[in-house]
Amino acid sequence: MRLTIPQDRFADALGTVSRAVSPKNTIPALAGVHVRATPGRLLLRATDLELAIERTVEAEVHEPGEAILPARYLADLVRKIPFGDVDLEVKDGQPVAAVRWGKSHYTIHGFPAADFPDIPAVSGPSFRVDRGAFRELIRQTAFAAAQEEARPYLKGVFLTLAGSELLGVATDSIRIATTRVPADNPENQSLQVIVPGRSLQELARLLAGAEDEEPLRVSAEPNQVSFDLGDIRVISRLLEGQYPDVLRLIPTSYPTRARLDRSQFLEAIDRAQVLSRDGSLRFSVGPEQLVITGATPEVGQVYEEVPLVLEGDPLDIGFNARYLTEGLRAMDDREFWFEFSGSRNPARIRPAEGDGYVYVVLPLVTF
Amino acid sequence: MRLTIPQDRFADALGTVSRAVSPKNTIPALAGVHVRATPGRLLLRATDLELAIERTVEAEVHEPGEAILPARYLADLVRKIPFGDVDLEVKDGQPVAAVRWGKSHYTIHGFPAADFPDIPAVSGPSFRVDRGAFRELIRQTAFAAAQEEARPYLKGVFLTLAGSELLGVATDSIRIATTRVPADNPENQSLQVIVPGRSLQELARLLAGAEDEEPLRVSAEPNQVSFDLGDIRVISRLLEGQYPDVLRLIPTSYPTRARLDRSQFLEAIDRAQVLSRDGSLRFSVGPEQLVITGATPEVGQVYEEVPLVLEGDPLDIGFNARYLTEGLRAMDDREFWFEFSGSRNPARIRPAEGDGYVYVVLPLVTF
Repeated sequence: MRLTIPQDRFADALGTVSRAVSPKNTIPALAGVHVRATPGRLLLRATDLELAIERTVEAEVHEPGEAILPARYLADLVRKIPFGDVDLEVKDGQPVAAVRWGKSHYTIHGFPAADFPDIPAVSGPSFRVDRGAFRELIRQTAFAAAQEEARPYLKGVFLTLAGSELLGVATDSIRIATTRVPADNPENQSLQVIVPGRSLQELARLLAGAEDEEPLRVSAEPNQVSFDLGDIRVISRLLEGQYPDVLRLIPTSYPTRARLDRSQFLEAIDRAQVLSRDGSLRFSVGPEQLVITGATPEVGQVYEEVPLVLEGDPLDIGFNARYLTEGLRAMDDREFWFEFSGSRNPARIRPAEGDGYVYVVLPLVTF
Repeated sequence: MRLTIPQDRFADALGTVSRAVSPKNTIPALAGVHVRATPGRLLLRATDLELAIERTVEAEVHEPGEAILPARYLADLVRKIPFGDVDLEVKDGQPVAAVRWGKSHYTIHGFPAADFPDIPAVSGPSFRVDRGAFRELIRQTAFAAAQEEARPYLKGVFLTLAGSELLGVATDSIRIATTRVPADNPENQSLQVIVPGRSLQELARLLAGAEDEEPLRVSAEPNQVSFDLGDIRVISRLLEGQYPDVLRLIPTSYPTRARLDRSQFLEAIDRAQVLSRDGSLRFSVGPEQLVITGATPEVGQVYEEVPLVLEGDPLDIGFNARYLTEGLRAMDDREFWFEFSGSRNPARIRPAEGDGYVYVVLPLVTF
């Protein structure tokens, strides 16, 4: 294998696929990027066996071939090479790459190309979704997925395609984040998959700043899903399990509804948390203001007022500030509705305008 | 004690003095900022018993008094208060502060004012030095001080005032960094003190961006030094011990001298380090170029060429890349002299123009 490629293009492609390399993998070859040169093109691939990222870039290929090269060393080196052309050469049968530019030359030890696992083609039902909309869906759900391992399927986002709508749901049993975005589904496919939160977070990075481009193509099989971005493909294992019907748990009637300024509310709970060691805060929803109070023995007490527009009955309720902060940071709207179904039931947060994003959070039992 | 102060001024002053609070202190009151209100002024002080920082700011003092308030909580809170006036009140004999602005009010538990240690006045010999020049002296020496504890005095920078020149020296036994700056010493004082590197690093932060202001006033007694910045004062304990006469160890003749472009050289060793696990690199100084090579078994090999202007004899020598990088990052000059006194003796680095900064580094015995 022998090729010439501009440094910036090579560095960018290595940066993209390296995100799938796990620093704690136990299979040596998985610390590598698999590179395959075919006429005019270089395909780079990396995987940790749960997530795989592939990227194809143009390159001047003098001699086709393939190899596995250590991801971290190669990415670090190429990032530091000055702007200009880089030559990459791997002699047949020798997993050693020569990297050359100007008068510099480096050799880097790799792994035999055959050690790289297959990355499956995914050929199941597919649909298309706008890149910006899908990134927003990830932003508004993935943060609420569980971190712990007890029920692995809760570490994912549950995606449901029905008609021309894609619904995303994530929960860690204390809060539920859900949103819906339009999907282009001409064959009227139906789909229910649980995608690991981490895979979606990596996908979201790749979708950033690419809103104008072609819609994302999503294909799913029983065990895996593929996101096709044109020259980049992200393939993820799906999580197994029966995702609970959490939307059923969301109250349907809200006798207390407060419309609040999102920044003002966020700033107040951000300050209140300074003196609240565990984040427990009490919210008194009154006719003209929301009063936030909290106390930590030997540290101090907190009193904040935030103006509101109240519909319905006043009430007192407690929340862990972190759950409110995270839910409100997943939206950009200036105002939101904070809706209550009594002090012991989940409360609902949603933007004052629009009905895509809904966030539901359990109150604290004691406050 | 009762006063009103603009939020930004209070936040800024708390930020300044909090740097002296050690997160791992064992005396509870040392987690606090001592505040003392006198007519029109608020004095804030913090110390970890090695380093103390004091700052005076204007405030509308309604009732004088003093207290110790927890540094982290108070600084975090005040930083998050919106722009505007803040009221601070501490009732006599009660170490509890009330912080109020708008409709918000917080109480914060503190410590009795009497628990705060005395911060000494330093009245020994004094001199003045330009703020920018002293910051540069810190930048060009403190990084080279020892980190480990074996000989505590090596953790400091050795300052010598003689006539109208201030000399700074730091070493960790592998390299020596030294620089000299002009001092305003009308009384022709002489002074030799060892200032802890950490104290100087904190002082450097406070000197940043303040080059136009009044010169810094430095006063020293046998055990402590004070740096007077007008409204800010930094007091540091001095390190005890006989600082070794390391300047005597610097070779005086350099049969090999290479003039190099600093950025080009730094970029080359930065790349070379990617494949060199322990940073050992070999430098072949030739008539037309410096060749940098290195190898790590099972990782790879490195070859870089950097053009030079050579005076004297070619030579081969080895260095740990980190020591070169740190020494060269402490200067801004476009070109530097890399001077050698054989492969087994310390090499000298200094800017191509100017003679203030000199950096001396031991070569590797094997390379």
